[in-house]
Amino acid sequence: MATILDGRETSAKVMEELQSKVEELKGKGVTPTLALVLTGTDKYSRRYVRMKVKRAEKIGMETRFHHLEETTTDDVVALVRKLSGDPAVHGVLVQLPVAEGLNELAIVDAIDPEKDVDGLIPSTLGKILTGEKCFLPAGVEAIMEIFRRYDMDPEGKHWVVAGSTNYLGKPLIALLSNMNVQVTFCNKDDPRMPELVKGADVLCTELFRKHAVTADMVKSGVIVIDNGNNYEGKKVFGDVDTEAVSDVASAITPVPGGVGPLLITMLLQNTVKAAARLSV
Amino acid sequence: MATILDGRETSAKVMEELQSKVEELKGKGVTPTLALVLTGTDKYSRRYVRMKVKRAEKIGMETRFHHLEETTTDDVVALVRKLSGDPAVHGVLVQLPVAEGLNELAIVDAIDPEKDVDGLIPSTLGKILTGEKCFLPAGVEAIMEIFRRYDMDPEGKHWVVAGSTNYLGKPLIALLSNMNVQVTFCNKDDPRMPELVKGADVLCTELFRKHAVTADMVKSGVIVIDNGNNYEGKKVFGDVDTEAVSDVASAITPVPGGVGPLLITMLLQNTVKAAARLSV
Repeated sequence: MATILDGRETSAKVMEELQSKVEELKGKGVTPTLALVLTGTDKYSRRYVRMKVKRAEKIGMETRFHHLEETTTDDVVALVRKLSGDPAVHGVLVQLPVAEGLNELAIVDAIDPEKDVDGLIPSTLGKILTGEKCFLPAGVEAIMEIFRRYDMDPEGKHWVVAGSTNYLGKPLIALLSNMNVQVTFCNKDDPRMPELVKGADVLCTELFRKHAVTADMVKSGVIVIDNGNNYEGKKVFGDVDTEAVSDVASAITPVPGGVGPLLITMLLQNTVKAAARLSV
Repeated sequence: MATILDGRETSAKVMEELQSKVEELKGKGVTPTLALVLTGTDKYSRRYVRMKVKRAEKIGMETRFHHLEETTTDDVVALVRKLSGDPAVHGVLVQLPVAEGLNELAIVDAIDPEKDVDGLIPSTLGKILTGEKCFLPAGVEAIMEIFRRYDMDPEGKHWVVAGSTNYLGKPLIALLSNMNVQVTFCNKDDPRMPELVKGADVLCTELFRKHAVTADMVKSGVIVIDNGNNYEGKKVFGDVDTEAVSDVASAITPVPGGVGPLLITMLLQNTVKAAARLSV
């Protein structure tokens, strides 16, 4: 039976450590501060940003939450620039996608690279690709955190990245291009996906389809990172049939309770790191 | 027998077309202009930059060549900024590697993204990864040009990228992540390289070893893009044993005379495109 890679438990541990670190920084007169910019009226985005605010404040961080329901690209760019230029702000985040009609690239590009704690701007992604030091997008950092916490070596393995968005799969591929690994990737709808998945020592999915990966598709001993988030009513399912694949895999992130709970935590971890570094 | 993908012939064709395009732009009062910044005293770099200047002028372009033998990061950054800000300059190139002791990242980052015709700066690489419009590094553009000129479809194929530098393999992987392909990549010294190469419909090598890929290692019908440049005295050899692999492959770039002759041409093509766009 596979080890269940428990994102909730891991997140709780990291949050505890972060709380101590925040207290320590406050003792030195620095309060780690995250600015969050939300545009438009999407309810899901609003709820998600509020969760980020709540979680940050829970561990003693400060937040600057700006919600611009109706706005222009110029106004958001000006706000993001102002927040980036504020020495009391250590991390700046723009909730994506931005509201319809706004220029997402222009907006994220206004974030100071040193404060790009969500790994949103093109230059951050370019640095990941060339192996320069920078913050990783939360989803990518979450995967690396799970490998660290469960003492698994990400290197020397054949990774298969099945499906890749700009927020997770692509920056993951970029990161892996600097490591001692073999990597195979394909689009989420690639007809050759099943045969590629079979070769994976580590399988990372972003397929947007409930149980698209079944037990017969994977190699014995595979480590599975399931980034699926497929709702049926209020119930959520992964891209991978967790129960059946657990009999074959050596380790697997469940859905829910896998990488999901780590996303906000990694954002906060990046912000605390930025605060520690920027306040030296 | 494989089609020989003739980089010299392809380059000559493109150069001819570029010359017409330059004349056309000049007729509109715009002279495509490339600025080149060289640091240090490396003879190979100096010769290569001079070749770029000569080739640009041959098709009627203008160049601004700056050679700073002894310099500081601040001075180079200031120069690159000045060139970037000059409306008469359409493309800015810094010859890499920069001289020892200089901060390469700070220097390339001073290039205006709109004038980054050699695909050097982090934000350009990030844009390639997310599929935003931008200039591709010459080596990547050369591969795509060969596919276009020989009417080969890069999509629907399994690419294997064996070895990957920041200048070629990594941006190629980033580009491919936006296409309808399967991709496998590994480091140049990966012990599993041979088994991965076997699966390639398109094989792209950056292995730095003479004839590291032999005929028995590849699948029948493979398209081979050999980026090797391995010198033995004055003779240069590819990463692939061209002659033997030609019996198995459907198409192959020879060394010399494959992608090499296209590199400067693609830089000039990007600059002419920048001139056409920036002068609208």
